Amino acid sequence: MKQFVIIGLGRFGTSVAKTLAYKYYDVLAIDINEEKVQEISDEVTHAVNLDATNKKALTNLGVGNFDVAVVSIGEDVHANILTTLILKELGVEEVVAKAQDSLHGRILTKLGADRVVYPEHDMGTRIANHLVSAQILDYIELAPNYSVIEIKASSKMYGRSLLDLSLRTKFGVNVVAIKRGKKIDVSPQAETKIEEKDTLIVIGSNDSLEELKKF
Amino acid sequence: MKQFVIIGLGRFGTSVAKTLAYKYYDVLAIDINEEKVQEISDEVTHAVNLDATNKKALTNLGVGNFDVAVVSIGEDVHANILTTLILKELGVEEVVAKAQDSLHGRILTKLGADRVVYPEHDMGTRIANHLVSAQILDYIELAPNYSVIEIKASSKMYGRSLLDLSLRTKFGVNVVAIKRGKKIDVSPQAETKIEEKDTLIVIGSNDSLEELKKF
Ligand SMILES: Nc1ncnc2c1ncn2[C@@H]1O[C@H](COP(=O)(O)OP(=O)(O)OP(=O)(O)O)[C@@H](O)[C@H]1O
Ligand SMILES: Nc1ncnc2c1ncn2[C@@H]1O[C@H](COP(=O)(O)OP(=O)(O)OP(=O)(O)O)[C@@H](O)[C@H]1O
Ligand SMILES: [Ca+2]
Ligand SMILES: [Ca+2]
Ligand SMILES: [Ca+2]
Ligand SMILES: [Ca+2]
Repeated sequence: MKQFVIIGLGRFGTSVAKTLAYKYYDVLAIDINEEKVQEISDEVTHAVNLDATNKKALTNLGVGNFDVAVVSIGEDVHANILTTLILKELGVEEVVAKAQDSLHGRILTKLGADRVVYPEHDMGTRIANHLVSAQILDYIELAPNYSVIEIKASSKMYGRSLLDLSLRTKFGVNVVAIKRGKKIDVSPQAETKIEEKDTLIVIGSNDSLEELKKF
Repeated sequence: MKQFVIIGLGRFGTSVAKTLAYKYYDVLAIDINEEKVQEISDEVTHAVNLDATNKKALTNLGVGNFDVAVVSIGEDVHANILTTLILKELGVEEVVAKAQDSLHGRILTKLGADRVVYPEHDMGTRIANHLVSAQILDYIELAPNYSVIEIKASSKMYGRSLLDLSLRTKFGVNVVAIKRGKKIDVSPQAETKIEEKDTLIVIGSNDSLEELKKF
């Protein structure tokens, strides 16, 4: 099983560390702030209070032997960059680093980060999208113009069968599943009637999904 | 069209504001820091430099007439709470507030916040899940134990047809679409052969999807 080191226990880093530990992965959590280390110590394999820009300290801890490192230091961009560099020098195979903006991200990539993440930015985009399309509960962007969406059935659909609605002909979208309460029907038939509170899982181009949303 | 006011232009708030403005929504962006206001001013309808805990200033700006407010003030939890309270008092219909942790979230809900969001926490969970299941590119959680996932085809699938693989019989999962390069096949036939680099969109219980991941 992979071993993880998480450096920087802000909200993001803490969430990454706890999620992994909850799945029984080996997690070493590091922060320069003693309090953050205390807070997480019961929930991860090891929690250590040190400055991650101190290469010797990381070396002594054996950090180089970990499979994956997540650098989630935020405001201190310099420490974030230096830590990423040190981790690659120590031989950590997969280094994931959190960036403030795309310029910062480009620097991290140049220094060897294997993956750069922008949690606040990405979540901002997601939540803005949710706000303007209240029915969309979640989505997967498959391609720049193609998505799977989870959407509430609109009142116009209530009591009508998929055949009758013919969403594929009308909008060019495919209903791949219907969620009703706790049940999920993964092969909805043409005669299946939509009920109030049903949730549809639909796949299609973003343009056709936009049309469906207005239906 | 709905009008939005975004208060607190950190990475999260900025991303929400820009995403909405890009979709041609009316966006009023507010920050106590003059620099943040300058940075975003060209990209939103209005950008104003003020302390959002100043009820008079918000009233004079006519903030009460906006449909949706997003409170994305971070570290200053007191300002975040006070701003949320003021926005509800001014009559903003939908107030979305970013919380530091669940205790903070409970307070916001009690004070009238219509939705509480935890961007760093949620993204931490998402990224941790991605890290331990490298093939999973994205997912929608449909129910506590049921998901749609976007997953890379495993090498065992290469050159084999869906009929031959019989993933439904073997794992109880349904392949709802196949992505190949930029093309997406939303009604894959039994005889469709999986190729290297294909991405599958699969729906099923989390347990059966876990089994599929190991295949
Ligand atoms: N040199 C360092 N070594 C180890 N940890 C560090 C170092 N510098 C900062 N940290 C820690 O990183 C953590 C996250 O940093 P910070 O709070 O600036 O990020 P953030 O982006 O605001 O976090 P989040 O949004 O995830 O809450 C903090 O707990 C901080 O103590
Ligand atoms: N009273 C206030 N009125 C208006 N804006 C405020 C107020 N207090 C703080 N802000 C602004 O809110 C913004 C976000 O706050 P902060 O940087 O503490 O949050 P954060 O959680 O670290 O943000 P992010 O993670 O999204 O980058 C900052 O630009 C700050 O200037
Ligand atoms: Ca912080
Ligand atoms: Ca998703
Ligand atoms: Ca900040
Ligand atoms: Ca943050």
